[in-house]
Amino acid sequence: MSRVILQADAQEEEAASATPPPSTHADGNNGRPQLSALPPVAAGAAGAARQLQLRHREYGRGVARCAHGVGGAAAVRRRRPAAATASEANHEHHLPDRHRRRQRLPDREPRLRCRYFTAFLAYGGCNLVLAASAAAICAYIAPAAAGSGIPEVKAYLNGIDAYAILAPSTLFVKIFGSILGVSAGFVLGKEGPMVHTGACIANLLGQGGSRKYHLTCNWLRYFKNDRDRRDLITCGSAAGVAAAFRAPVGGVLFALEEAASWWRSALLWRTFFTTAVVAVVLRGLIGFCRSGKCGLFGQGGLIMFDLSATIPTYTTQDIIAIIVLGVIGGVFGGLFNFLLDRILRAYSFINEKGAPYKILLTITISIITSACSYGLPWLAPCTPCPVDAVEQCPTIGRSGNFKNFQCPPGHYNGLASLFFNTNDDAIRNLFSSGTENEFHMSTLFVFFTAIYCLGLVTYGIAVPSGLFIPVILAGATYGRIVGTLLGPISDLDPGLFALLGAASFLGGTMRMTVSVCVILLELTNDLLMLPLVMLVLLISKTIADSFNKGVYDQIIVMKGMPFLEAHAEPYMRHLVAGDVVSGPLISFSGVERVGNIVQALRITGHNGFPVVDEPPLSEAPELVGLVLRSHLLVLLKGKGFMKDKLKTSGSFVLKRFGAFDFAKAGSGKGLKIEDLDFTDEEMDMYVDLHPITNTSPYTVVETMSLAKAAVLFRALGLRHLLVVPKTPGRPPIVGILTRHDFMPEHVLGLFPNLRKSH
Amino acid sequence: MSRVILQADAQEEEAASATPPPSTHADGNNGRPQLSALPPVAAGAAGAARQLQLRHREYGRGVARCAHGVGGAAAVRRRRPAAATASEANHEHHLPDRHRRRQRLPDREPRLRCRYFTAFLAYGGCNLVLAASAAAICAYIAPAAAGSGIPEVKAYLNGIDAYAILAPSTLFVKIFGSILGVSAGFVLGKEGPMVHTGACIANLLGQGGSRKYHLTCNWLRYFKNDRDRRDLITCGSAAGVAAAFRAPVGGVLFALEEAASWWRSALLWRTFFTTAVVAVVLRGLIGFCRSGKCGLFGQGGLIMFDLSATIPTYTTQDIIAIIVLGVIGGVFGGLFNFLLDRILRAYSFINEKGAPYKILLTITISIITSACSYGLPWLAPCTPCPVDAVEQCPTIGRSGNFKNFQCPPGHYNGLASLFFNTNDDAIRNLFSSGTENEFHMSTLFVFFTAIYCLGLVTYGIAVPSGLFIPVILAGATYGRIVGTLLGPISDLDPGLFALLGAASFLGGTMRMTVSVCVILLELTNDLLMLPLVMLVLLISKTIADSFNKGVYDQIIVMKGMPFLEAHAEPYMRHLVAGDVVSGPLISFSGVERVGNIVQALRITGHNGFPVVDEPPLSEAPELVGLVLRSHLLVLLKGKGFMKDKLKTSGSFVLKRFGAFDFAKAGSGKGLKIEDLDFTDEEMDMYVDLHPITNTSPYTVVETMSLAKAAVLFRALGLRHLLVVPKTPGRPPIVGILTRHDFMPEHVLGLFPNLRKSH
Repeated sequence: MSRVILQADAQEEEAASATPPPSTHADGNNGRPQLSALPPVAAGAAGAARQLQLRHREYGRGVARCAHGVGGAAAVRRRRPAAATASEANHEHHLPDRHRRRQRLPDREPRLRCRYFTAFLAYGGCNLVLAASAAAICAYIAPAAAGSGIPEVKAYLNGIDAYAILAPSTLFVKIFGSILGVSAGFVLGKEGPMVHTGACIANLLGQGGSRKYHLTCNWLRYFKNDRDRRDLITCGSAAGVAAAFRAPVGGVLFALEEAASWWRSALLWRTFFTTAVVAVVLRGLIGFCRSGKCGLFGQGGLIMFDLSATIPTYTTQDIIAIIVLGVIGGVFGGLFNFLLDRILRAYSFINEKGAPYKILLTITISIITSACSYGLPWLAPCTPCPVDAVEQCPTIGRSGNFKNFQCPPGHYNGLASLFFNTNDDAIRNLFSSGTENEFHMSTLFVFFTAIYCLGLVTYGIAVPSGLFIPVILAGATYGRIVGTLLGPISDLDPGLFALLGAASFLGGTMRMTVSVCVILLELTNDLLMLPLVMLVLLISKTIADSFNKGVYDQIIVMKGMPFLEAHAEPYMRHLVAGDVVSGPLISFSGVERVGNIVQALRITGHNGFPVVDEPPLSEAPELVGLVLRSHLLVLLKGKGFMKDKLKTSGSFVLKRFGAFDFAKAGSGKGLKIEDLDFTDEEMDMYVDLHPITNTSPYTVVETMSLAKAAVLFRALGLRHLLVVPKTPGRPPIVGILTRHDFMPEHVLGLFPNLRKSH
Repeated sequence: MSRVILQADAQEEEAASATPPPSTHADGNNGRPQLSALPPVAAGAAGAARQLQLRHREYGRGVARCAHGVGGAAAVRRRRPAAATASEANHEHHLPDRHRRRQRLPDREPRLRCRYFTAFLAYGGCNLVLAASAAAICAYIAPAAAGSGIPEVKAYLNGIDAYAILAPSTLFVKIFGSILGVSAGFVLGKEGPMVHTGACIANLLGQGGSRKYHLTCNWLRYFKNDRDRRDLITCGSAAGVAAAFRAPVGGVLFALEEAASWWRSALLWRTFFTTAVVAVVLRGLIGFCRSGKCGLFGQGGLIMFDLSATIPTYTTQDIIAIIVLGVIGGVFGGLFNFLLDRILRAYSFINEKGAPYKILLTITISIITSACSYGLPWLAPCTPCPVDAVEQCPTIGRSGNFKNFQCPPGHYNGLASLFFNTNDDAIRNLFSSGTENEFHMSTLFVFFTAIYCLGLVTYGIAVPSGLFIPVILAGATYGRIVGTLLGPISDLDPGLFALLGAASFLGGTMRMTVSVCVILLELTNDLLMLPLVMLVLLISKTIADSFNKGVYDQIIVMKGMPFLEAHAEPYMRHLVAGDVVSGPLISFSGVERVGNIVQALRITGHNGFPVVDEPPLSEAPELVGLVLRSHLLVLLKGKGFMKDKLKTSGSFVLKRFGAFDFAKAGSGKGLKIEDLDFTDEEMDMYVDLHPITNTSPYTVVETMSLAKAAVLFRALGLRHLLVVPKTPGRPPIVGILTRHDFMPEHVLGLFPNLRKSH
């Protein structure tokens, strides 16, 4: 709610424009804002800087006086409570109309300044309350909902099930925290959280609903296996992108390029179906909302920033300009990732201290953001409204292109137009064509710096926050700057440069190519720009890749998640599988004592155990296969134990259990060994593991190159890889390789001498 | 060249329109063509069918008379040789202007009919010569160049190196055969051949040029490994699509969805780079050709069929209409694939008989095609030119929307407008919006039937022929028919229905989704249609998938290529790896007698041999690894043999050979065992295989589920999978699984009882 639209009372404005206020110096000061009736020496001064300084000093004095007369301000607030209430729905703050006052009450200027200060307090206060609520629900209900969620979804699809990352509580916080966070005026996007939301909903469906919250559907249990759940969550993330950008094909490509670790053609078809449904539903909703009854939703129709009207013809010089833009994008992107990594590491110290610290950090960032948004526009010059403006200028009472802010009537403040707008409208303003002079260079510089820095410091706070919007905003801004600077050599419109700037910064930070390309295409409907967008993406990605990893990969590494890369590291070629297998190996006999199993499950956290038949069950020790912890727990709970160590036909298991009893439960909802109780008598009985043993586990010989074992492990999406001995006469199993055994930290920890060559 | 543009002499036409010919009955016959001065009984008849019959009888009589007076026709030809010459470049045939003749020489009507017949001879003759040349170079130089090439490229990327499929001769024939084939007026496209061309060029680069044709580049040898070559060819196919449709993103997605069997994120980035270069080059060429100096190239700019002007708003009724369209597309697509399969199997009997039969078949199809193209427009009614036509009507002397053909001035023949145009223009005509009444229903029905049938019979002939164009043409035609029929319930433009019809037929035959969607988007620049295109594709693909496989997959099966599916067949779950390993296994000792190796290479065609160390080389028989035929040949050629059976340090190999000596040569260019000669003394010597043995081959235990072995084999892209015994005390290797061992024919041949459950 607090993207406050500052406005003058429309009726009063008309009166004011009829009789210009005496303090507006039309001669030679280019519509520069006259905050107050400045002393003549200031009004006559030529240096703009000095004037600004003076104005600030004056303003400061006003604020000081305002603090003394805070009772009066409070009285004003009491008289007009709607202006300061956070629950106000119409997004408008009625600023005191200074012109009328100036004409009638010239001696009450400090009071006017005081009103500005009150407005800031109201604005900042609303932001602060919203930010604090977002941080509170995030810190107390679902800490996993903080941040973008894309790295977590990516890690989940790689096989890393972090705690509560797709839980229903996370879903709840992600949705409402994101709404609160965007409303609080932070420099963050809703796109990343929407991807995470899509993945959470998919997970909820894939678990057959939520048992904890008593929302279960029986037919959904058919998704209860790893691969279908993984596919469903991939589709969910695709749907998130499709909904966020209204880009169905972009959603499919995002899922393919960024989210999924294992791709198969069936998945292409499934994500495509999902995003087609998203597109049809979105279109229906937009059609339903065409009359404007859904607030800001549906603006721009299916194409959010339609640029299709501009048909660019570009020359070699333009292409040189675009290459320059791509290089800048790569450098800025690499720097952004580097700084973000540092800031996140610093934040993690604060966030670790507990929920109150998280909220405190969020509040601090909220205050900084409010101060920037409200304070920086005072630095910007007032620009007279363009004569041929299609849009209303200045825009009054709604989100739009030209914001009046503190400027005299008929003028607008460029920075306020960017800050006091929805993110979508700000991007639309930057992308708009035929508006070469809409924004001053200084305005764009200030805005770029502010968004770049605020985007960096905002990401790590305990609020669901996406990176797309800050990156697109910053990219579009410097694109416009570069476009204006290179105006002498390039004829392209600054709006197109803004689009290319956004593309280059996206390429520089996120390192996606095809998906960003298609998303931008679907956002702007500007197919003729495609070759240029591809070019700029390629350049910026290449440049940035030479500095560091993509931002999501960096965050995954920073969070310490054991992400499996698609390729093996080069140093793995010098090792064999047997080199990295570690730890005392616990294996079970084909028919095992219950007590041994219970003890093994209690003392280790292993999820898989090899099963070895030994005489008398077989002639020689022989590897039967692999048994999973979850299956063992189901079997133990069934308590079909035997007095003697005898191999059974397995009919007991078939009778007692159905296939779905062994199906994978939702994250953290499975059985735990601590939940099961056994009598001493039971502990001494035996249980036949053969019926639940996977008798075709993937195996490698201990002398297998570690690099090839890693490729096998990754390509097949394994969790356990059995290592068997090369020479006969030894126990039939050497060890089990899991994901952690392939992590660079583990391998290089065992063989530090490889670190140098690495 | 022979998409002949029939026209009347422009000057004469003006005169004729000033004084309408007496035979044009304007009253109530709706501009129906008056081929000749019909007898009054015919002119007064109400039934159009009867009139048509009469006209045909009349025409037939004219033709008969023409045969008698062929000397006269020949004389005409001699006087105007340019009109009948195949090498004529301006695409124009000057038909005798019948109006002047009719006015001045009413008694020479038979002569006029004779001229039409001559024109047909010229038209059909040109087509025939072009078709025969295409078939001749294809049949004699590179039979592998026939057909689309997409199935072959797909099979190559799956690991099947069919003979000469990417050879330079194939490239040559593919390019020129495709030009000749398209010129010959066949119902075929250039898109498939362009994909194949791209793959051939990529292969040429990947081989380091062609040694046979003395075109080698030394630095290109770095691509001489399987994976890089595979990536390069994937990029080549993406470039082909990108160039054919001017759709860079569509190219990437085609490579992903249809061409590649193994995908990795690096490949996405590489194909994207390739198609970006294609887009930039294309754009440059189109810019260069803007002045029209490149013939028909560059028409439509980067967007071939720009529909962006029409902004559709669609309702639920429209969506119902589109669902109907999707269902029809699915049925037609399934039927098309079924019939194509039958026709290709029938053709294969003819084509097997030799090159002359291939050429004969091609000539037959060429004559049928010419007869259809020239004959069918006579059935179509003449339509008066629309009053508000933006384009010239009738179109004279160039490719365009309204073809005059036999119609009186100011009229056009709808069928001729579709047949006597470039394929691109025909598609543009069908897609064009605001032209509800441009084509009669009968015209569209006849055109659809003709294209559907000609498309079916054309594909199997010995000419490079793509399927995209026939499918898009047929799809767009029935889309327009459905759109016109459903006009009462749907307000959508028939042009948009044509687009959706093309999408549904593409989905029904090729079963691609995302790539077709993006290609159509990039062809038409109509982003707002995206949800509808997605919907129609999903429906048609789903319907058609319930009948049979996609057309390319069918062709791969029909050609007997051992294509590895990404998933294992269900019946494989009932088998283990040991069940399908077959044949006597030839294995080498770690230090082997040269004679044994030579003999093994001579009597078998195996490409991989297991190496087993036996005492005294090791304590017990032990599997060392796998040695490749190509590496053995290089080693044997080097002749570093030893007198005694001793394990060496391998230094000889390291000294004598570089890594590139073992690099994979181009297809069919490698060493052959027949090329090597050995003395008897050499045959009795020994050679150490350890340095060239792959000591980390992927292995499975013989009791491994065949389904899991198949997944391993496919996911890792293996050529050999070693099967090791489960129990000790047996030879350390049971056998080698290759691609053929996983083929359904092989497995079901060994276990016919599984066929029933399958």
